[in-house]
Amino acid sequence: MTTAPSLDITASADTRVLEATTPSSAYLDVPASKPLRLDSQRQLASYRIAYQTYGTLNGAKSNAILVAHALTGDQYVASRHPVTNKPGWWETMVGPGKPIDTDRFFVICPNVLGGCMGSTGPASINPETGKPWGLDFPVITIGDMVEAQVPLIDHLGIDQLFCVIGGSMGGMQTLAWAARHGDRVATAVPVATAAWHSSQNIAFHEVGRQAVMADPNWCGGRYLELGKEPRNGLAVARMAAHITYLSEEALHRKFGRNLQEISAKSFSFNADFQVESYLRHQGSTFVDRFDANSYLYITRAIDYFDLAAEHGDVLANAFKGTKTRFCVVSFTSDWLYPTRESREIVHALNAVAANVSFVEVESDKGHDAFLLDEPELFATIRGFLNAAATKRGLKAAGKG
Amino acid sequence: MTTAPSLDITASADTRVLEATTPSSAYLDVPASKPLRLDSQRQLASYRIAYQTYGTLNGAKSNAILVAHALTGDQYVASRHPVTNKPGWWETMVGPGKPIDTDRFFVICPNVLGGCMGSTGPASINPETGKPWGLDFPVITIGDMVEAQVPLIDHLGIDQLFCVIGGSMGGMQTLAWAARHGDRVATAVPVATAAWHSSQNIAFHEVGRQAVMADPNWCGGRYLELGKEPRNGLAVARMAAHITYLSEEALHRKFGRNLQEISAKSFSFNADFQVESYLRHQGSTFVDRFDANSYLYITRAIDYFDLAAEHGDVLANAFKGTKTRFCVVSFTSDWLYPTRESREIVHALNAVAANVSFVEVESDKGHDAFLLDEPELFATIRGFLNAAATKRGLKAAGKG
Repeated sequence: MTTAPSLDITASADTRVLEATTPSSAYLDVPASKPLRLDSQRQLASYRIAYQTYGTLNGAKSNAILVAHALTGDQYVASRHPVTNKPGWWETMVGPGKPIDTDRFFVICPNVLGGCMGSTGPASINPETGKPWGLDFPVITIGDMVEAQVPLIDHLGIDQLFCVIGGSMGGMQTLAWAARHGDRVATAVPVATAAWHSSQNIAFHEVGRQAVMADPNWCGGRYLELGKEPRNGLAVARMAAHITYLSEEALHRKFGRNLQEISAKSFSFNADFQVESYLRHQGSTFVDRFDANSYLYITRAIDYFDLAAEHGDVLANAFKGTKTRFCVVSFTSDWLYPTRESREIVHALNAVAANVSFVEVESDKGHDAFLLDEPELFATIRGFLNAAATKRGLKAAGKG
Repeated sequence: MTTAPSLDITASADTRVLEATTPSSAYLDVPASKPLRLDSQRQLASYRIAYQTYGTLNGAKSNAILVAHALTGDQYVASRHPVTNKPGWWETMVGPGKPIDTDRFFVICPNVLGGCMGSTGPASINPETGKPWGLDFPVITIGDMVEAQVPLIDHLGIDQLFCVIGGSMGGMQTLAWAARHGDRVATAVPVATAAWHSSQNIAFHEVGRQAVMADPNWCGGRYLELGKEPRNGLAVARMAAHITYLSEEALHRKFGRNLQEISAKSFSFNADFQVESYLRHQGSTFVDRFDANSYLYITRAIDYFDLAAEHGDVLANAFKGTKTRFCVVSFTSDWLYPTRESREIVHALNAVAANVSFVEVESDKGHDAFLLDEPELFATIRGFLNAAATKRGLKAAGKG
């Protein structure tokens, strides 16, 4: 494990490429003596997991919370992003005095396997060729992401995580942690997620992948070694995906049919409507910080996620005999992972008599609500974690 | 007006380009003496409207139904498409003995202004340059589409249409006909539509346009004269749009997470899932029959549609004093134009004491339901038209 010095430069593709191979954050290099056997049956001989930690691990190593990030997230959950220079993606949730209180808990946030912020992924150098992996990188699964995080927890000397928590794909990792390593997970908080990816969601991902692969600068995935970037394709993919993160109500409230700094329609293909300009901005800023091949691999991993199929088509079997305490959270206006998909998780957990609470948060912000200022979400997470921590005998913050 | 001989050849881009300039269907060339003043304040000096008719216009010219097509539709509502060689897009609805009974009614279906099946649009030749219009074609509106159809109705000697009917963008044209030329529309049937295009729908259109314009073969819109085709971009646009035409239930029922002719995941970016393969097919067949610039222009026209904004932000004002009888139809699972948007039309019509009936059809097929086998839809249209026709004194079919 090495911690590289923190960079503080403005966003650029150069920084992004640098971060993929030389992360600003801490990282763990898992040696070839502990290869990762993937769900595809292929093997990663050695790999790196880049991660950030916040707070202090207590002597009993019993206060660790693993935060699993979503599709385009990273390890910078509560600290400045080295490429965009923006605050962490969940600073409202994680920090001193926040619901995930770093005065009480030790927070670990790894960049997922397949990611592009320092963990091994398609933008990393393939040791066999000395060039970026590109499409030679093996297709991975959510389960593989979790397995790649296990050595990190071992390395930190943690037998049992106090909690695994995450929203969206982070929620899938949370469920996979509980299903695969239940004895190492005291509590689990899957937020705005599902136990399998729906047909409609696969369809949206496929549109995004086709947009990337249609870009001639994608070059069959070899753009990095050829010094090119499929910016247009990735931007279109992000734009399409971004719509699914918002609710129609949120879009209507934010933008309606408002025109963009003009008094009348331009009768052209300019971004007349504010919503067009907003989407274009989402697309263009995204490509500055994200690797196109990582986008392909991670969306594929999500598509493949089906915890029931892994357990004889009976979701409850994934959690048989679990001692983990669960808190499942959904949002009323989330149409990417609607509440009924969280209910299916709750039903499966009930079927194995698991300890589970379920909260559907009233919000009109859509799937993105899990990242936003949602007091009911904060109160739910804070309450659940504090009650479970007290039960576990963890000191309250400031009672050191 | 000339009727070109019907072609019967297989689908190809060559045929498509030929149809844009030399339609197989009938067409009307509106001369420069009757220029079209567009909503943009630009003027089309002369233009062509390609159309098909079905059935026989009666002596009183009182049995004419104008069918307005949707975004990617055309005049081949009930006859073989000259490019794809497939049956008409609404053969379940239009024909002898069908709900829109061509034994009783005379059906006119024009290709919209801006379209690519023979009506003047960006793929037509700009008389000033002798080259395809491309992006020099003026940006048009739904209202412009309607105004371009008026000379056709005049040409056919019809004072008042018995009915204007259409789904989706066809429903918008229906509303615009009733709002602009109410005295020429006895009945109007807007199906699965809205009086304005929502923020979310503008967003989806913008993704599609960006996908087209990101394709280097789009060449700033000049691909036709350069002998290129933005196939990839247009296919991605179609894929994204296609998802919005279906309901999540329909996708789940049709495909679920079923794999495509393989027994297990391929751990690759192949179309493992049936839904991926289906979407790719939708994309690739679409580009054979549709012009990319037409897609830009027509989506823009839909985005611009806002019947309330045209009438002092009060939708009811669009229909003040109307004598047209309306039948508004929506579908329970349509999330592109949800029922509440049809209700807004109905409320506006009620506010001006219009004669309006409203039917929400129970269906899990999403927006596409209006094109599919929906017995309740058929019964609604048949019942409404027959009652109105009897009231108008039109003979029943076969009572010649």
